[in-house]
Amino acid sequence: MTGSVALVGAGPGDPGLITVKGLELLPSCDALVYDRLVARELVDEAPAGALRISREPLSQQEINELLVRLARRGLDVVRLKGGDPFLFGRGGEEALALVRAGIRFEVVPGVSAAASVPASAGIPITHRGISSRVTIVNGHSELGALPAASSPGTLVVFMGLARLDEIASELLAGGHSAETPCAVVASGTLPEERAVRAPLRRIARAARDLDSPALLVVGDVVSLADELGAAAGAALQLAV
Amino acid sequence: MTGSVALVGAGPGDPGLITVKGLELLPSCDALVYDRLVARELVDEAPAGALRISREPLSQQEINELLVRLARRGLDVVRLKGGDPFLFGRGGEEALALVRAGIRFEVVPGVSAAASVPASAGIPITHRGISSRVTIVNGHSELGALPAASSPGTLVVFMGLARLDEIASELLAGGHSAETPCAVVASGTLPEERAVRAPLRRIARAARDLDSPALLVVGDVVSLADELGAAAGAALQLAV
Repeated sequence: MTGSVALVGAGPGDPGLITVKGLELLPSCDALVYDRLVARELVDEAPAGALRISREPLSQQEINELLVRLARRGLDVVRLKGGDPFLFGRGGEEALALVRAGIRFEVVPGVSAAASVPASAGIPITHRGISSRVTIVNGHSELGALPAASSPGTLVVFMGLARLDEIASELLAGGHSAETPCAVVASGTLPEERAVRAPLRRIARAARDLDSPALLVVGDVVSLADELGAAAGAALQLAV
Repeated sequence: MTGSVALVGAGPGDPGLITVKGLELLPSCDALVYDRLVARELVDEAPAGALRISREPLSQQEINELLVRLARRGLDVVRLKGGDPFLFGRGGEEALALVRAGIRFEVVPGVSAAASVPASAGIPITHRGISSRVTIVNGHSELGALPAASSPGTLVVFMGLARLDEIASELLAGGHSAETPCAVVASGTLPEERAVRAPLRRIARAARDLDSPALLVVGDVVSLADELGAAAGAALQLAV
């Protein structure tokens, strides 16, 4: 009998931010395929006899094939992914591979880093009178994918740390003011969280000592961390 | 001694989609202030002796004042909000009121409807080769806030059902193709979930029998529900 696959979002980092439904699936799985950034505490929730497979060395195509193969062996699989499976999580590709192979699957959404990581640094990505639009892009994407300054609201860039110089230059070229408040939050929601704030013209330099995973927030909402950052307990450095 | 406030995201509807951390705070709170759309099962997690206050009749200003007042009475308060507190949840306003009153608070993020409700209908809001940008707006916002067609990727509109006709007209006027795939998902993630899909030119008519809360998704990713919708068990009606 064929098994099934649950595509489960583990949330932004803090293991307490997985959903109740996601956590409940772990102790009864036969196999767990997990992302590198998923908390160890969650991986340990799989039963002692379960297969535990890190996805790290695998290409997306290989992961898709692995999930199908495990389910065909009759195993109930949990595919545990950082953040949310369907917001830059490539869960759609895994889901398509499963449906095309006739494997039963379900999606258990997770807390995306998009709002939760800025929140952890005292930044609400929407705020009445300041921002009522959020644009989320992936820093790995090709240049030219960033919104121009004519697009109002808050911009969130996933995984942009390696390209932060280019991203800042492109935003300036797109008409964003050099003084636009920016923040980079690394390891958001984890004890080792670090964040810096600076105007757009200086954000790449201000963030040069941070490590991935990190998220860039661009927009006036960043200034709310003046008041909310300290209260949020955020280790926020200011580079004005 | 002054109490504290936890701003907790309850997730999109399904009570199993609250975070583990959020659920753990409920049984020890002294007062629970909750949104109308929060699942009854979660409200029932508050201890028998706790104050339970629906925010429904209150203005945002009144909620802010209520949270401060309860904490000053020494109560530990959970403010349970639909979705994520900081993504169109107005949690930033509550957080500012608390910090200005000197009340300790924490933010426990939640699963936003933005990705989870489309996912429940078989729609990944990002997908390689189809969409690598997501724009999220609030349907209550003033006209003119919607992105033009020059903005690529997926558009998600919260709470746009009442204004769906206007929103569709505005998108068409902004240059979006009349054939752009759209979906409206009502009561997403709940047993009573209903969804319709139609091209932009017909989406308002197709969704006329749906009730709030509902979310509009615009973009080519909607077509992935052809394959993923049935597998996701979505009660998706097609109006082509």
